[in-house]
Amino acid sequence: MSVNSFGTLFRLSTWGESHGPAIGCMVDGCPPGLELDEAFVQRFLDQRRPGTGRNVSPRQEPDQVRILSGVYEGKTTGTPIGMMIENVDARSKDYSKDAPYRPGHADYSYDAKYGIRDPRGGGRASARETAMRVAGGAVARLVLEGIEISSRVDAIGGETDASKWEAMLDAARSEGDSLGALVECSASGVPAGWGAPVYAKLDAVLAGAMMSIPAVKGVEIGEGLGAADLKGSENADAMRAGEDGPTFDANHSGGIAGGISTGQPIVVRASFKPTSSIRKPIASVNAAGEEVEASTRGRHDPCVGIRGAPVMEAMMALVLADAKQLHRGQCG
Amino acid sequence: MSVNSFGTLFRLSTWGESHGPAIGCMVDGCPPGLELDEAFVQRFLDQRRPGTGRNVSPRQEPDQVRILSGVYEGKTTGTPIGMMIENVDARSKDYSKDAPYRPGHADYSYDAKYGIRDPRGGGRASARETAMRVAGGAVARLVLEGIEISSRVDAIGGETDASKWEAMLDAARSEGDSLGALVECSASGVPAGWGAPVYAKLDAVLAGAMMSIPAVKGVEIGEGLGAADLKGSENADAMRAGEDGPTFDANHSGGIAGGISTGQPIVVRASFKPTSSIRKPIASVNAAGEEVEASTRGRHDPCVGIRGAPVMEAMMALVLADAKQLHRGQCG
Amino acid sequence: MSVNSFGTLFRLSTWGESHGPAIGCMVDGCPPGLELDEAFVQRFLDQRRPGTGRNVSPRQEPDQVRILSGVYEGKTTGTPIGMMIENVDARSKDYSKDAPYRPGHADYSYDAKYGIRDPRGGGRASARETAMRVAGGAVARLVLEGIEISSRVDAIGGETDASKWEAMLDAARSEGDSLGALVECSASGVPAGWGAPVYAKLDAVLAGAMMSIPAVKGVEIGEGLGAADLKGSENADAMRAGEDGPTFDANHSGGIAGGISTGQPIVVRASFKPTSSIRKPIASVNAAGEEVEASTRGRHDPCVGIRGAPVMEAMMALVLADAKQLHRGQCG
Amino acid sequence: MSVNSFGTLFRLSTWGESHGPAIGCMVDGCPPGLELDEAFVQRFLDQRRPGTGRNVSPRQEPDQVRILSGVYEGKTTGTPIGMMIENVDARSKDYSKDAPYRPGHADYSYDAKYGIRDPRGGGRASARETAMRVAGGAVARLVLEGIEISSRVDAIGGETDASKWEAMLDAARSEGDSLGALVECSASGVPAGWGAPVYAKLDAVLAGAMMSIPAVKGVEIGEGLGAADLKGSENADAMRAGEDGPTFDANHSGGIAGGISTGQPIVVRASFKPTSSIRKPIASVNAAGEEVEASTRGRHDPCVGIRGAPVMEAMMALVLADAKQLHRGQCG
Repeated sequence: MSVNSFGTLFRLSTWGESHGPAIGCMVDGCPPGLELDEAFVQRFLDQRRPGTGRNVSPRQEPDQVRILSGVYEGKTTGTPIGMMIENVDARSKDYSKDAPYRPGHADYSYDAKYGIRDPRGGGRASARETAMRVAGGAVARLVLEGIEISSRVDAIGGETDASKWEAMLDAARSEGDSLGALVECSASGVPAGWGAPVYAKLDAVLAGAMMSIPAVKGVEIGEGLGAADLKGSENADAMRAGEDGPTFDANHSGGIAGGISTGQPIVVRASFKPTSSIRKPIASVNAAGEEVEASTRGRHDPCVGIRGAPVMEAMMALVLADAKQLHRGQCG
Repeated sequence: MSVNSFGTLFRLSTWGESHGPAIGCMVDGCPPGLELDEAFVQRFLDQRRPGTGRNVSPRQEPDQVRILSGVYEGKTTGTPIGMMIENVDARSKDYSKDAPYRPGHADYSYDAKYGIRDPRGGGRASARETAMRVAGGAVARLVLEGIEISSRVDAIGGETDASKWEAMLDAARSEGDSLGALVECSASGVPAGWGAPVYAKLDAVLAGAMMSIPAVKGVEIGEGLGAADLKGSENADAMRAGEDGPTFDANHSGGIAGGISTGQPIVVRASFKPTSSIRKPIASVNAAGEEVEASTRGRHDPCVGIRGAPVMEAMMALVLADAKQLHRGQCG
Repeated sequence: MSVNSFGTLFRLSTWGESHGPAIGCMVDGCPPGLELDEAFVQRFLDQRRPGTGRNVSPRQEPDQVRILSGVYEGKTTGTPIGMMIENVDARSKDYSKDAPYRPGHADYSYDAKYGIRDPRGGGRASARETAMRVAGGAVARLVLEGIEISSRVDAIGGETDASKWEAMLDAARSEGDSLGALVECSASGVPAGWGAPVYAKLDAVLAGAMMSIPAVKGVEIGEGLGAADLKGSENADAMRAGEDGPTFDANHSGGIAGGISTGQPIVVRASFKPTSSIRKPIASVNAAGEEVEASTRGRHDPCVGIRGAPVMEAMMALVLADAKQLHRGQCG
Repeated sequence: MSVNSFGTLFRLSTWGESHGPAIGCMVDGCPPGLELDEAFVQRFLDQRRPGTGRNVSPRQEPDQVRILSGVYEGKTTGTPIGMMIENVDARSKDYSKDAPYRPGHADYSYDAKYGIRDPRGGGRASARETAMRVAGGAVARLVLEGIEISSRVDAIGGETDASKWEAMLDAARSEGDSLGALVECSASGVPAGWGAPVYAKLDAVLAGAMMSIPAVKGVEIGEGLGAADLKGSENADAMRAGEDGPTFDANHSGGIAGGISTGQPIVVRASFKPTSSIRKPIASVNAAGEEVEASTRGRHDPCVGIRGAPVMEAMMALVLADAKQLHRGQCG
């Protein structure tokens, strides 16, 4: 698997750091003849955009995407679609090079790997990279006509009653703390037969895709972790004869059996850890090996999971677009 | 991602159906000069072998592996290591082509994908394929000197008290039912710096690897699903200055930050659904669209999770061997 | 690109050394439902088989292929097709470990790379590996209905008059020497539109495929090297309006323009160097750094190019099968 | 192989059309800590730049490259290096959509593949894409300390005497015609042991790389096509004992044996067909199937091979950087 690319036939590759001049991507393998313009991509970007609510980071990035290639007279041409967003609100002064390794962040592990690191805003490890996933995911949706992808936050800080979240988030913010979240993403309308056995199982690819989103620490398909507690007779999705093929009494499988879609909705859930950037001081060290407290004063979401939902949708779209094209390539 | 291959530089490719003449694999990219013989691989295969206990399938497969290439005078040569196990206990009479689609199995989805299917024992979708993962994982361990990989069953049927499992499994078997399980696998001794940002994150690759194991429906890294319930200050792994680099007060991250190893133990958990092959009848349909009850009379484990543990170890070894070589290739 | 695999969607992976227990391969991504049995594959293997003429190596290998997976009741299932040939005529006594590095062979470069080498019969570097390319190529032809792949030796030792070849080969053999050859392979019936721009150009993939055949040192598409001597007006393939699309006055392009097939026959030529294994002594060194003469007494073809023709056909089939599936996957 | 990417560990991906807003690329897998700035890349771009001589296209593109990511304080960070050149001199009015399919160009084959095409200046098929190869190749050179890559035009229009080329090119231009060329590229200082057996042979990868350059129709390694005319005893590179390992009496192999470097200079030659865009009218058809004459009046080189030399160097650098990192990953 390439470090900065995702997918085989429908492939997204991204580049760019949080506070460099720009971030960008290319979408390789998008079929020709699909209608695409910047406004369409922008609509999805605006959903994950910071600065649109009290509980997401107030960093003001217009995040205006430019399409630089692969589209001619409003239609995709089959050649790579290059897209770019300039980083207009980069504030590199917020960040210092000899700052503490922020626990939960990639600061220490990047230094261990590369011996060098762009410290500005998390650099390549910043969640800002996910903007390009959303842009790529928007293109992927063009391939998925008839498929509905949606997502919702299921719980924040362990609480499933959404009416309490606002107060909880306010409290976390005022304490200089943050909250985790559980987010579900599903896709309906996926025909039976997409995916593959063994290593390119649709659930395996989805799990990798979701776990690649910053802050995700757990992924479930269908019954998920709960499947470990059930009996075989309880977990079985009984089948009935239907007019357009079999129907299912339940969807414990999350729409995937043996790595291949069953025609039922594909359901995946991910847990997002609480934002690692918090004001509360945490014991840490710096690159010089000195013990220093980490305390983040910058602009950060008290719950990154909220903005994770559109990113999960993007990854779902990318996985399905690739699965569709791979299926057509082998079995079409 | 290739359908039947796993890994980039250290790559396992497997072939073979449950009840065909043989199953096999090739390991591509193993470094030269490592000591390897069939007895070493066999040791790991014996751990996952059926027929070795009351609670695993009584199918008697000796599973004798043969190494057919890539080793000369007891050492790897750097060329692909071909391995094969002949299927000596194949009983194709246990299986019928116009049988019901077994709920939870890949029967229906395979037919939807390919329009054709080897029905003997689950064919390619059989867990028998995991024998070759274990063989490949054994080779991967050669690359991982100083790294300890272990696994344990954490819960069966929701019960964490292991002294009760035997009775629960007996009960499930006599009821013609089955139980799910939760299994943990960890690796200690992994140096900081393996893995990569963005799409080839070590946790993303691990999640895909574990979710590709038959019956797995959920994967957690470190704090996992529980991270959604914590506050940022609770989930932080505080760091201290140590003699050989920083130490950590906790390991909520499961040994991975920003997709790159931190030097702490890597901890991954997977939920295995209860065995789908049960004697209890489940409503289903067959390929002709007729409603028929599915009831499996063959030889099957009441809890596939038990045999999943060595397979998780194999996948952990494959992921880490590849991560080590990729790291050396880019940063070495 | 994987070291021992070829192709993206239709992918051949091979393993095995010349004088190990067996050689084998897996074909991943073959579509389901195609008729396939061992006799079909065997027919192509017999074409490249040694021992069938005076001018090819007298080594007597029956080369009986076994299909071990991926076929059920005479049809491909879409799962990987494992194939194997046992090495029954391996004569390891012909080879010695402290022998000279044979000039033109991979002896020295393998040792430089791996620090270890299976010296029996060239090990992995032996042309014996091409038997599995031929087996894989046979499967690839199933995907290419309506496409005719053929090959012919154009010249031996610089002589294009075939009536003189027999005497030239006899002379070379009696002198303990060998001859090079020029071989052409073409495919007719390929529709316009296969291939891709930029890096996966059909001609680029073909060139890599042909150059990967042992002993090949040059590859030409269409006008090839000669294109360098022409004027643009001479090299242009003028087009005319035809009933089923445009027709061409010439085929200087070799059936490929901008990396994509034009509908004309695809024509590729390769030069095979003279067999490196000759009886005539050549100055060389051994692994200990001592100067020793290399002189090969074993069983070897005086002109490897003759047996290269069916291997070129196999590579052509593999390239086109993959190109067809990739095209269908992106544009289907 | 990805359509718009090249390489495995050190990987270049490019996007952009000739007359779109910009062209760009990302280099993925470049090691960290190497000194890199825009001036360094620009130096190589200027070598291939149009408008710098009478015999290359007078199109005036400043081709000012911007590095947008992957470099921090003058050093590579190990994250993807995004680069971009804006197309400031795009003259889309030179091109018309219902123009004839230009023989030798990708016009017809693109339409056959995609059913849609960006006709402006050849779109994605334009040689302008090679600017990003040169940019990526510049980065690749950073990885290749101690290795000298050079190139030279060997022949133009079949003439090896360089003193006659100027007059020949003037004549071709005034006739509205063009000339082919033969270009050689070599790399010295490559250690023995890079490359791989079988499918990722260094010569196979090089052949694919060179054949992917627009207008290339033939590729030779070492003795190349001429090897077909030699005897084994003539083609052998005899070896002698040297102080730092063996030395060779000749380099018929072009520095590669069995797909692996021998330590001798790597020598590859490519034939460039004459520029397809010529003023002389050629019979052709257009998208409507009407017979129309093609005659190119735009700005074009009379011999594209001249500008192919720096592109060959770039591809050589990309191949070797990847080979180095792959070797280190498996055998390091």
